[in-house]
Amino acid sequence: MTFSNNRVCSLFNIQYPIVQGGMVWCSGWKLASSVSNNGGLGLIGAGSMHPDVLRDHIRKCKTATANPFGVNVPLLYPDIEMIMQIIIEEGVEIVFTSAGNPANWTSHLKSHNIKVAHVVPNVKLARKCVEKGVDLVVCEGFEAGGHNGKDELTTMVLVPQVVDAISEYVPVVAAGGIGDGRGMVAVMALGADGVQIGSRFAVTEESSAHENFKKAVLDADDTRTVLTLKQITSVRLMKNAFYESIREAELNGADEQTLRQLLGKGRAKRGIFEGDLENGELEIGQISGLIRDIPTVKQVIDRILVEYSTTVKTLS
Amino acid sequence: MTFSNNRVCSLFNIQYPIVQGGMVWCSGWKLASSVSNNGGLGLIGAGSMHPDVLRDHIRKCKTATANPFGVNVPLLYPDIEMIMQIIIEEGVEIVFTSAGNPANWTSHLKSHNIKVAHVVPNVKLARKCVEKGVDLVVCEGFEAGGHNGKDELTTMVLVPQVVDAISEYVPVVAAGGIGDGRGMVAVMALGADGVQIGSRFAVTEESSAHENFKKAVLDADDTRTVLTLKQITSVRLMKNAFYESIREAELNGADEQTLRQLLGKGRAKRGIFEGDLENGELEIGQISGLIRDIPTVKQVIDRILVEYSTTVKTLS
Repeated sequence: MTFSNNRVCSLFNIQYPIVQGGMVWCSGWKLASSVSNNGGLGLIGAGSMHPDVLRDHIRKCKTATANPFGVNVPLLYPDIEMIMQIIIEEGVEIVFTSAGNPANWTSHLKSHNIKVAHVVPNVKLARKCVEKGVDLVVCEGFEAGGHNGKDELTTMVLVPQVVDAISEYVPVVAAGGIGDGRGMVAVMALGADGVQIGSRFAVTEESSAHENFKKAVLDADDTRTVLTLKQITSVRLMKNAFYESIREAELNGADEQTLRQLLGKGRAKRGIFEGDLENGELEIGQISGLIRDIPTVKQVIDRILVEYSTTVKTLS
Repeated sequence: MTFSNNRVCSLFNIQYPIVQGGMVWCSGWKLASSVSNNGGLGLIGAGSMHPDVLRDHIRKCKTATANPFGVNVPLLYPDIEMIMQIIIEEGVEIVFTSAGNPANWTSHLKSHNIKVAHVVPNVKLARKCVEKGVDLVVCEGFEAGGHNGKDELTTMVLVPQVVDAISEYVPVVAAGGIGDGRGMVAVMALGADGVQIGSRFAVTEESSAHENFKKAVLDADDTRTVLTLKQITSVRLMKNAFYESIREAELNGADEQTLRQLLGKGRAKRGIFEGDLENGELEIGQISGLIRDIPTVKQVIDRILVEYSTTVKTLS
């Protein structure tokens, strides 16, 4: 399976247009380097890392792979200035920014010869990315796990509209709801140049998520996730006792401050990294219902490529 | 463009696996017969019709096309018994039921040699359809216009999971977010046997929607629709003054009864059929942002088929 003339592959100098989404508590150097070693683009998820931890992961990733990799920086977290400084100091060549404004960091990063991708939930922000000189746009649908936009546009409708608006200027990568090769063909048919896959890589051997979390995803059916905490920052997670407490508070008319107190600190770490399935925040996408095993990254990518070929043949 | 060995085409004896979704105030005999005359399957939307009006539309549709057509019956509306009686008396051969339980009507309709499809929002109900002897399952995603399920599964994640669960037993049609040939290829890649398209057909010459409504859809951008009234029955519509009043009431903690009073009667008729863009309910899907003209049904189907071929070639 080769992707000749693919713009994502050319831009990042990778073999397959498969980006592993940056995910809190899942995508450290082990996952990122493994994806990059297998022909995709691995991303270290800076969202859950203190600056010094991020520096350590970047260094380990450089040792673990000779291939290109990147760092995902959700702009809503603290210490952004320090994180960007470390990224520049450590010579990271690719940065995916998300959950924020592409105007804030693109030109600074690009002045250090860093390729910049930005994640968007609608057409307007996609156009703004092009204006601000972003090299690639990831459009992420409502079905994606973790933090999510207010617009609730699904991957099926977001991709063709973003493609029509900006694909002549920069490559477009689709994210949200893609768990196998069928999903990859689907978004490529909609005009995407590549895919960003989160949940499927969160549940691999190399993911740093807790075994309890990975097993909980295996047990999840199609209706297990929900987009919640819309008053603070929308997040898609698996329903559990923690979610029920949020839901009850919302039904009782809780304001933002009450919800912030209920959320507290370290909920995602508790759920995803420490495996507390009742009281932790279990961020995962809607496609989790399709995930039935814990393979290696290599197995995931191999399967996607085989399914991709088979699906394209079936369509022809 | 031919779809040989396609299960939807075989089941309904049609040329293309393109079903026109039944839509209140849009899909009368004119739209349905035109879709059927152009090789798809037209559906009369019984949801907005009094029983005698439905009978009239069925008779006119039979006169206007010699090809198969069907009736869509949302099971949440009143007069269901009378509507089913008319469908049987008038010799309708295909019925799509939605917004309800497939156990209620499937066997009765099938005992009158009627082919039955049912619309589902999740895997569990898809399995139940198979158990109850439904001939075909439509799985409809969160992005679809009009009434929508509580599970909020998007087309991208719903289709492959429903396909994996039941496709060996009955054909699966995908609905929600499909507005052109790219979207059709996308869901076929996910394993669907065909598509059900609503919004794109709502904005055609043959649609009985008001010109104001059609033009409002042309002006809509990607973020114009919202899923609302979740306390009563979730419905996707365009944001307008009516929606703002609902939103404000909800923010003020309105209960179900207050919302029902605010909704009142005939809101969808007022918006879609009478063209009151401020005070009417403007039901349409998220893909409306992609709709930029008011073509004939023939033009829509021709375009979809051309785009379908082009997209498949690009993928190969």
